Parts: sequence; C-alpha cells; structure tokens
Amino acid sequence: MDLNKKYRELLKKEKAYTYALQILNWDSQTEAPRDCFPQRAEVMGFLSGEMFKISTGKDMQEAVYGLYEQKDTLDEITKREIHKAKKQLDRITKIPENEFIEYNRLLQMAQRIWEDAKANNDYQSFKGTLAEIIEYTKKFVSYYGEGKHPYDVLLDQYEEGMSMKEYDEFFATLKRDLVPFVRKVLAVRDDTNYDFLSRKYDIDTQKKFSNYLMDVMHFNRNRGLLKQNVHPFTWGTSPEDVRLTTKYVENMVFSNVFSVIHELGHATYEQQIDSKWNNTFLEGGTSMGIHESQSRFYENIIGRSHEFWETHYPKLKSLFPEQLKDVDVDLVHRGVNRVEASLIRTEADELTYPLHIMVRYEIERMIMNGEIGVDDLPEVWNEKMEEYLGVTPDTDTEGVLQDVHWSSGMIGYFPTYALGSAYSAQFYNAMQKDFDVLGVVKTNDMGKINAWLKEKIHQYGSSKDPKELLLDVTGEAFNPKYYIEYLKDKYSKIYF
Amino acid sequence: MDLNKKYRELLKKEKAYTYALQILNWDSQTEAPRDCFPQRAEVMGFLSGEMFKISTGKDMQEAVYGLYEQKDTLDEITKREIHKAKKQLDRITKIPENEFIEYNRLLQMAQRIWEDAKANNDYQSFKGTLAEIIEYTKKFVSYYGEGKHPYDVLLDQYEEGMSMKEYDEFFATLKRDLVPFVRKVLAVRDDTNYDFLSRKYDIDTQKKFSNYLMDVMHFNRNRGLLKQNVHPFTWGTSPEDVRLTTKYVENMVFSNVFSVIHELGHATYEQQIDSKWNNTFLEGGTSMGIHESQSRFYENIIGRSHEFWETHYPKLKSLFPEQLKDVDVDLVHRGVNRVEASLIRTEADELTYPLHIMVRYEIERMIMNGEIGVDDLPEVWNEKMEEYLGVTPDTDTEGVLQDVHWSSGMIGYFPTYALGSAYSAQFYNAMQKDFDVLGVVKTNDMGKINAWLKEKIHQYGSSKDPKELLLDVTGEAFNPKYYIEYLKDKYSKIYF
Repeated sequence: MDLNKKYRELLKKEKAYTYALQILNWDSQTEAPRDCFPQRAEVMGFLSGEMFKISTGKDMQEAVYGLYEQKDTLDEITKREIHKAKKQLDRITKIPENEFIEYNRLLQMAQRIWEDAKANNDYQSFKGTLAEIIEYTKKFVSYYGEGKHPYDVLLDQYEEGMSMKEYDEFFATLKRDLVPFVRKVLAVRDDTNYDFLSRKYDIDTQKKFSNYLMDVMHFNRNRGLLKQNVHPFTWGTSPEDVRLTTKYVENMVFSNVFSVIHELGHATYEQQIDSKWNNTFLEGGTSMGIHESQSRFYENIIGRSHEFWETHYPKLKSLFPEQLKDVDVDLVHRGVNRVEASLIRTEADELTYPLHIMVRYEIERMIMNGEIGVDDLPEVWNEKMEEYLGVTPDTDTEGVLQDVHWSSGMIGYFPTYALGSAYSAQFYNAMQKDFDVLGVVKTNDMGKINAWLKEKIHQYGSSKDPKELLLDVTGEAFNPKYYIEYLKDKYSKIYF
Repeated sequence: MDLNKKYRELLKKEKAYTYALQILNWDSQTEAPRDCFPQRAEVMGFLSGEMFKISTGKDMQEAVYGLYEQKDTLDEITKREIHKAKKQLDRITKIPENEFIEYNRLLQMAQRIWEDAKANNDYQSFKGTLAEIIEYTKKFVSYYGEGKHPYDVLLDQYEEGMSMKEYDEFFATLKRDLVPFVRKVLAVRDDTNYDFLSRKYDIDTQKKFSNYLMDVMHFNRNRGLLKQNVHPFTWGTSPEDVRLTTKYVENMVFSNVFSVIHELGHATYEQQIDSKWNNTFLEGGTSMGIHESQSRFYENIIGRSHEFWETHYPKLKSLFPEQLKDVDVDLVHRGVNRVEASLIRTEADELTYPLHIMVRYEIERMIMNGEIGVDDLPEVWNEKMEEYLGVTPDTDTEGVLQDVHWSSGMIGYFPTYALGSAYSAQFYNAMQKDFDVLGVVKTNDMGKINAWLKEKIHQYGSSKDPKELLLDVTGEAFNPKYYIEYLKDKYSKIYF
C-alpha cells in the first residue's frame, strides 16, 4: 500500500496550505486592515500556487491515478475517496498553473472592490472585475467541461448530479405549485402593527442574545467561535475549528437572530462530522445543498416555529424589555413569518425566498449562455425582480451588488440555496416519523435534534453523496412535494 | 545582477511563509478555539519547514554567499542587507531541518500548556515543556555559537552588540546609582488614598478609552487594529498591517491604559517605517531594545507625565464619572506613578521595573550556565523577588509562570526591556533639545513627536543598527546616566 501512503502525505501537505489560506481568508473577511490587501494578495497568490503544485503535480497524479487503477483492491471508503479525488484531479489538472494563480489573486482584490462598490452604489467600478471573473470561469470550464454546457458543469460542481435539466424542473414545480399560493398570501391584507421589528436594539445586547442562541444550539465553544462581519458565513477547517460570522444592524434585531441560527445550522453540521474523516478527501459537509438544508432546517423549520418562540422569547424580552413591552409571543411568531415582496435576498422571508433564487439562477444561466454581459446585469436584475416579486431596487447596492458570491467566483452556487430548503423539508418529514420535533423544540432539548442529524447525516461528512443521503435518510429520492406541503401547511395556518 | 534577482525572489517566497505563519500565530493568540491546536501545530510545523527549506536551502546559500563575495560592488543598502542575511544564514543553516520543525511544533503546544499551567497555578505541568525548550535552545546555540557562551549568543541575537559583559555593567550601574534611590522612595510613607485605582471600571467603557487613545496617538486604522488577549503584544507584517492587543481587567483600568499606550508605542514605530524596506532584510524595527525604547517612551515619559493627564483626564472622567468623582488630575498623576514593591512585572511601576528584569536576567544567566534547572526555578524566582523587591509570590501564577516569554522560546529577551527604558531616556534628552516635548503633550500635538521619531528613528527600519541609531540621534554612544537622571528627577519631584 505504498501509493496510499504517498497519497496521504501529499494530501496532508495540500491541506496545510488550504488551512493557511483559510485562516488568511477568515482574517481578510473579519478584521484585516484595508491597506494590507495588496501585499496579502501577493502572499495568497504564492501559497495558492504552492498548493496547486501539490494537488495537481506529477506525484499526486501518480498516486491518485495509480490508486484508481487498483480500485478494486481498495476498501470501500478509500475507493470512494479516490473516486472523488480523481474527479477533482481530472478537472483541476486542466487549468494552467499561472492562470490559477492569477485568478486567485484577482479574487483577493475583487472582494475589496465589491465591498467598495456596494458601499458606494457604484456597479461601474465592479463590473470590469466581474467580467474578468466570468471570463476565467468560462475559460476554466472549457478546459475540463468535456464539452458540456458550462453552466451544467458549474451546477454539478456545487451539487453533485444537478444540472439545468433538474433545476429547470425544480423551479418549474415551484412556479406551478407555489407561486399561485404565494400570490394569495401576498394579497392578504395584514393590518398588524409590526413596528417592533424595526425598533432600535442596542448591538451589544444583540450580541448577548447571539451568545444565548449558541448555547441553545449546543455550539461547542472549544471547537469554534462567532464573530462579526459584512456577510455572514460559516467555515470549518475541521470539526475542531468551526467559525461563523453574523452582521448586527441596530434596527433589524431579527435579521441577526435568524442569521445566527442559520449559520449555527451550518456550524452544527461541521462540528458533528466524525473526526475520522479529517485530512481525507471525505472531510467536510457533502454538498452545498445538503449544507444549506441544515442551516435552513434550523433557521426556518425550528427557529421560526411558534414552539421555538414560546421557549426563547422570554429571554429576548428580558434583554429588550423596553422595545418589546407591547409584544407577545404570537406577534413575534407572526412578525418573523411575515410574507413580503422584498429586495434583499438575505432578508427575504421563507416563502418568497425561492423567488430571489430564481432571479439569480436565470441570470447566471443567461450569463453562461452568453445571452447577456456585465453591462446588462443591473437592468436584467431589476426587471426580473419586478417580474417575480413586484419590486424594483432603487440602487444597485440593493440590487445586483447585494451578494458576495459572484465577487468570490461562485457562479452556480445560488440554486443550492433553494434546493437546500427543499431538502430540509424532506428531512423534516423523516424526522417527524421518529419523534415530535416541535415538541422537543418547546422543551428546549435541541440535543435530541442534533443527535438525530448527527446519526443520520452529519457524522458521514462527504462519505455519502447527496442522493445517497436523501435515500438513506428519507427512503426516497429528492422530492420537492415535501417542501411545497410544508410551506402551504405552515403559511395557511398563519394567513388563512 | 542576476544573483540579486534570485535573492529577491527567494526572499519573497520566504516572507510569504512568514506572513502566513504570523497570521496563524495572531489567530492562535487572539481567538482560535482550543481544540484546533493539535491540527494547527501540524500545519505550522509543515509551513515552518517549507520556510526553513527556502531560507536555508542551496539556492538561498548560493545567492547570499554569492552576493557577499561581490559585496564591494553592491550599493550601500544592499551590502548592509546581505551582511545581515549572511549573519543569519551562518546561524540558521547549522540547525538541522527536522529539529527546527520539531522545535516549532513544541512551541505551538507550549503556548497552550503554559496558559493552562498559569491558569491553574500548576508549574509542574509546564516544567517538562520548559526543560525541552531550554534543551533545544542550548543545542541550537551549540550549533552556531562558535564556542561563545550560550547566553552571550542569545543576548546578541535579541540586541546586536550586547553580551553579559555589557549587561552586567548596565545592571551594576543601576544597582549602584538607582537602588539606593529606590529604597529611599519605598521608605516614604504615603497615606494618600489610591482606592480609585482598583475601583470597578466597566470593560466595554474601558474599550472606548482604548479607542480614544488610538486616536490621540494618531494610530492609522487602515493599517492595523487593536484586539484583546491574555498577554498584550504588537506585531507587524509590514507598515500596512500592524496589530496590537491589550488585556482588560475590571478593577485595573490603568493597567489597560498603559498597556495600550505601550503597545501603541511599538505600533507607531512599525507604522512609520518606510515601506521601501518591505520584503527586504531591512524591514521591521531594528532591535528589541530600540523597539522597547519606543514603547517605554510613549508609556512612561509621555503617558505618565502630568501634562498628559492634564489633557486627557477629562475624557477618562467623562467615561467614568461615578468612579472618578472624587479624583483630580494631581491624584491621577500621583497614582499612576506610585512606587511599590510588587509581584507582577507587567504591573510594576516605572521605577522598580528594572529590578523585575534583574531577577529574570540573573535566572536566565544561571539556566544557561547550567547552575540551576527547571526544578529550581520557582524557588530561585521567589528568593530573588524577596531579595530585590522584598516580596515573595504566594503562587507560581504570580511568580515564575507570569510571563509568556519562556514558553515562546524567548530566552535572552527580558534584558532588552530594561535597556529599552534606558535608551528611551537618552532619546528623550535629545528630543528636548529640539522642542519642548511635554509642552506638545499638553497641547495634544502627538503628531509632532511622531514626526520627530519617524525622521530620526522609525523610517530607517532595520537599516541602522542600535549603536548607529543612538550615535546618529543623540550624538553619543549608549549612556545609562540619562536614565538615572530622568528617574531621579521625576520621582524626586513626586516623592520628596
């Protein structure tokens, strides 16, 4: 098993670079002073290059392809690992090293340029960089896409087995079965006074509630931390180091609350992965969609339930007695599930959220088809927002510049958000068969939910792919009907 | 000039690793969750090894030694750089790579072990690790010390040109001229009520004052940041990224205040270095002693002056009106300059501080002489504290475990603290000839002081060595009389 040893050693080196790059990125996203970025871009470019050399070099190719040839003699786990490694190697070896380095340098700078553009509502200053990112993406896909449609290649990359065909069907189902329902909900006249949602909530006190939520969710503080930044995210180098961020806005306390619960969903997944997968190709969550199913499950199904607020509202009220003095738990529940046609995806309610994703999916599809270019983006964005949600952003800051993804090179990622919500409803249906989920939420026994998810999903890391997981956990393939049913059931109770 | 180009390229690679390791260290010291450390130690060991290969490899040796041979054809700056690079290379190439990697791994773990030992007053759990660090240090010095006394080798490493001979003389002068004066001061009966020093000061409000001090000192926030950790320090990868930490204790507000001013002294030095030295061997402050002279200058000469508090006390009082309602500026000035025989170095007053350093200097000297071992340390420590300061720690936490240095492998560093104070008085004397320093403090024009230090000291980075700087700035070699005079003058006014 000499090749296996060689492979392990190379992987360990590769992961050392990944680790350093991840910490540098974490630092960039949460606290690095702005003048350090030119130098930092150089450093990260160099380290990415070294990582690239290892992960695609002759030695790695010999090890992976060598093992792949002997795959029938490998144990089941190693076989699976090599299968994945080979797939990635096939892809990555086709990108020339210098282009890979240049691209990573570009992404470093793009982050900052996007932040400035967003802050100044100045899409023009960002579009050149975005065009470069798109060009690189297309070029890279042309190297390894084996003639497939470039967007299909990207979609499969973020969610194994998915392509425009599946997504077109999925969104068509939503359009057919959900959109009419959403229209009905949006037509309901709601005279409730929701002032409390936008009152002034002191940020230091909001931080206390975030910390409370971490305890509610049993977040292990010896294995991670929470910090503040512009765009909330979760990131783990291993189950022993899982970090999440949130954004505090004084007059949007619930934005922070649900952002924290959402990221804690991702974080719980990462913390509950079995450490035996560390430093293997099977570490980390298995796909974007599955990851998002976990965050959406905690955020929406748990966090926006009446039971959750019956249990945790007293704590929030004790922190903000003045702001919440005229607010009871029913009003909170209704307020945090209020359906509205809004501009910002991350602030959108659970029901209209998939429409925001549809906008992005269709735009990405057109970009990758070459139907539109960066000059058209703001206009197309605004038109689609009007078409699906009936609202048009006044500024690009609230429109095409709102999300971090494209400036990070993540094209094809967005649709996994909607998919994740649909997965989560299917998992929820399965969990319900085992125990009364919201009953457990009401008694604040989140440990039981965490344990179920660990046993069924989390522990496996990437050793099971999304399709396999869905089948093993729910007994059937992906089926969006659970999502539709869940949404109709929940919002009918609230609105009709 | 092909060799020069080769040298620049290698240096850039080496510095990329240094940069990544520094950010990882920063993360370790300020926020990394504890369970990540075993994995992190592996990663840092690997990255250190890669750095080591570059900085000591055949290519680097060819470049540096090659350039050194042509040194008469080099410009003055490059010549100086190569001189320093060669000196370091001579030293470093003699340490076997695997030992270097093991040592760095050890230091990673030692940090955590020391923190636990200090928290639990459990020296026994740390001494084995400390013994290993000492062993490695002695072994490494034996490789490159050219037969010199190991402690002399270390002293010169932290402060070019210094050895036991110079330090023995320096401390002898202090013993002769300063100790009798300190005894007289300690004998003064002081019935003043200093209760206000240990009242309860809310930490979030303390943070506001720290931020105020950053502005007073003209800290450039686009080029750095302040954070919280156990042991305050300052660290810069370049003038564009200078980071400092401080420690907040509720009943020790002035401990934080002076810690912040002290670290801002280091940070101002780093921020004011000319960027032209970036990525050369002449970047960063020139020596530990000169660095400490800058922090001590700001902390003690500026920060503990009556003029400083005349200007800034109103701000502090406005933040803590309740705690400070019965305290006037004279009392604050007297309180922050109160002389006491205390246990903790970092909390010691300006006058007794050098005695704390003497304890450490003599212990290090004995360790490196092999006169004592790690088993003897707590006892020897306590005896010397009693001898010089008349106090004995009740716990090792307040004794031998109090400082981070030895767990970080820094043996020979401590004496530069006392040296830095002495340098600072000599610089102060020179600055006084150019303008009324405390007059400028009173009008809150710290920019003038920063500018003087930038012009005379900071801009040069490491391109001038300590001896050269002292001579250029003050017109004479190091002379401790300015330090003695300054202390006697200041404390006579306060106490007699």
